[in-house]
Amino acid sequence: MATTQNNPLTSVTVIGLGAMGQALAGALLDAGHLTTVWNRSQGKGDELVARGAVRAATAEGAVRASELTIVCVVDYDASQAILAPLADALAGRVLVNLTSDTPERSRETAAWAQTHGLSYLDGAVMVPTPLIGSPDALLFYSGSRDAFGRYESTLKALGGKAAFVGADPGLAALYDLSLLDFFYGSISGLVHAYALATADGVKAADIAPYLNSIVQILPPIAQYTAANIDAGSYPGAQANLGMMAAGVEHILHAARTRGLDVSQLEAVKSVAGRAIAKGHGTDDWASTYEVLRD
Amino acid sequence: MATTQNNPLTSVTVIGLGAMGQALAGALLDAGHLTTVWNRSQGKGDELVARGAVRAATAEGAVRASELTIVCVVDYDASQAILAPLADALAGRVLVNLTSDTPERSRETAAWAQTHGLSYLDGAVMVPTPLIGSPDALLFYSGSRDAFGRYESTLKALGGKAAFVGADPGLAALYDLSLLDFFYGSISGLVHAYALATADGVKAADIAPYLNSIVQILPPIAQYTAANIDAGSYPGAQANLGMMAAGVEHILHAARTRGLDVSQLEAVKSVAGRAIAKGHGTDDWASTYEVLRD
Ligand SMILES: NC(=O)c1ccc[n+]([C@@H]2O[C@H](COP(=O)([O-])OP(=O)(O)OC[C@H]3O[C@@H](n4cnc5c(N)ncnc54)[C@H](OP(=O)(O)O)[C@@H]3O)[C@@H](O)[C@H]2O)c1
Ligand SMILES: NC(=O)c1ccc[n+]([C@@H]2O[C@H](COP(=O)([O-])OP(=O)(O)OC[C@H]3O[C@@H](n4cnc5c(N)ncnc54)[C@H](OP(=O)(O)O)[C@@H]3O)[C@@H](O)[C@H]2O)c1
Repeated sequence: MATTQNNPLTSVTVIGLGAMGQALAGALLDAGHLTTVWNRSQGKGDELVARGAVRAATAEGAVRASELTIVCVVDYDASQAILAPLADALAGRVLVNLTSDTPERSRETAAWAQTHGLSYLDGAVMVPTPLIGSPDALLFYSGSRDAFGRYESTLKALGGKAAFVGADPGLAALYDLSLLDFFYGSISGLVHAYALATADGVKAADIAPYLNSIVQILPPIAQYTAANIDAGSYPGAQANLGMMAAGVEHILHAARTRGLDVSQLEAVKSVAGRAIAKGHGTDDWASTYEVLRD
Repeated sequence: MATTQNNPLTSVTVIGLGAMGQALAGALLDAGHLTTVWNRSQGKGDELVARGAVRAATAEGAVRASELTIVCVVDYDASQAILAPLADALAGRVLVNLTSDTPERSRETAAWAQTHGLSYLDGAVMVPTPLIGSPDALLFYSGSRDAFGRYESTLKALGGKAAFVGADPGLAALYDLSLLDFFYGSISGLVHAYALATADGVKAADIAPYLNSIVQILPPIAQYTAANIDAGSYPGAQANLGMMAAGVEHILHAARTRGLDVSQLEAVKSVAGRAIAKGHGTDDWASTYEVLRD
């Protein structure tokens, strides 16, 4: 939060007008920025142009129109297909890549940017398109701290929670994938929970309200699990892995009896079982961390 | 909620004085109930006796001391080992089994109870021991609606959220296992998320606060996923399975690169892949339900 500046009316270029690119450009227009847009295929962005965006005829023309270019396309193969020929045009400017991919791809792109003399900020969008532009919308940024400081107020137009997580350009993607890792584990368990309930004729909607009681305990669990992992000690006084593995076994048994796919549960059980075999039976669930890294 | 009565000072027996049994008996004492306790092994429950609980010399003596007996031991093998010889002593009384196990075991026990002329209420405790007795503590009950109505106010001493979920005695266990299914998917994803982050030198505690942004979206997702599953239609306008499977693939790739166990992620990916192969690529994640039941 140190180097925030007031740069209210910046000229910004947005490359990529898929669902997310359009939302980003729309938020910049809402904030009053002079917005230039470009997309590989024609026929996208008419609404943005109607609202005042300038459509560039070429990608090169687009990046030359602003000191700040934001790119958001399907993945880094796509972003590099667009950006690689534009190295000269981008030199001396600032590039923010909000495309999702792995930390490795972000670091490669940062190295390419450094070679060609452009400031590079890597980012990750953590909210769906309807939330873009809202004060609560979370986006991660990493890479050039200077570029972030210079454009922080502009970037906050995309989402008020603009979190710079470090100078390593891979970190935004790493935070992104970590959050998604938790997310996909959760929603996979969620759909499976409904499959279990509905197998006995219970409506999913009857279970749904009670799931809030689980959701409520996740933030404190996330916090103490993090503390235990960072400390490398897993006290299991409140609830231990042995007891919890027995719970997983009950779910697994009930799910098998009902003919459900149990591949996720089997993976969970196997990880817990290996942690118990390593002597963590009376430790907390966080001790499964030791097995995941083997 | 129909037949609630005011039966403030009931005599209650608690069988099983493990961590949970002790918490249950403690909450009954707190509420002023005459509480009789019994445990298989000696040396447990001294603190309860000091607080006024009556220790029965035998399990049979314990159940004869009260019209209402609550049993909470490790599993249904253990509860049946204790209860089977007590059928005569229990006849005409009310038995509440708060031991965790599968719906099948609950239904078997209810059938046994019916044969022997006792009222049977099956239950499941959804909170850790420190929350027992609090107004927010959730416990599920199913089976004899009459027994629940008669003892609802007594049972609320164990947890203020006493939810009777149906006359099928297996339902409390089914709700329990469904919630746990979601819980274990979530905390397994959580520990994996930390393993991913810490592999690149990020502290788990640095990721933890951001996980709240995922936790916040889970209740609305739980609600619309339930509605979609109950309706058998999975509109994917906001976010579709194809896009989400690409996200899972990024996590998987990053996790493999870092040498992490990826068995849970592989299971998640395989389920998503099979749903896409069935034509759900542009549907919502909830469409994986169709694959889990194959
Ligand atoms: N939508 C969301 O809710 C959401 C949320 C968080 C993060 N994200 C991330 O945001 C990024 C964009 O997602 P989106 O929803 O906008 O995707 P989308 O609607 O599918 O749009 C894809 C964009 O990528 C472009 N593209 C694809 N292949 C290309 C190539 N080889 N060369 C040049 N351009 C190419 C497309 O251009 P054409 O029009 O020419 O095909 C289009 O502009 C993704 O990394 C996604 O993970 C999305
Ligand atoms: N603790 C929690 O946070 C929690 C939360 C929700 C649900 N639950 C459920 O509550 C139940 C009890 O858990 P707990 O934490 O109290 O477990 P615990 O502390 O391990 O106690 C186990 C109890 O089971 C008895 N037992 C075990 N095997 C037996 C047998 N063959 N015959 C007779 N008694 C036997 C033990 O008696 P001895 O003392 O003689 O061994 C002891 O009373 C479990 O189903 C658990 O899943 C617990």
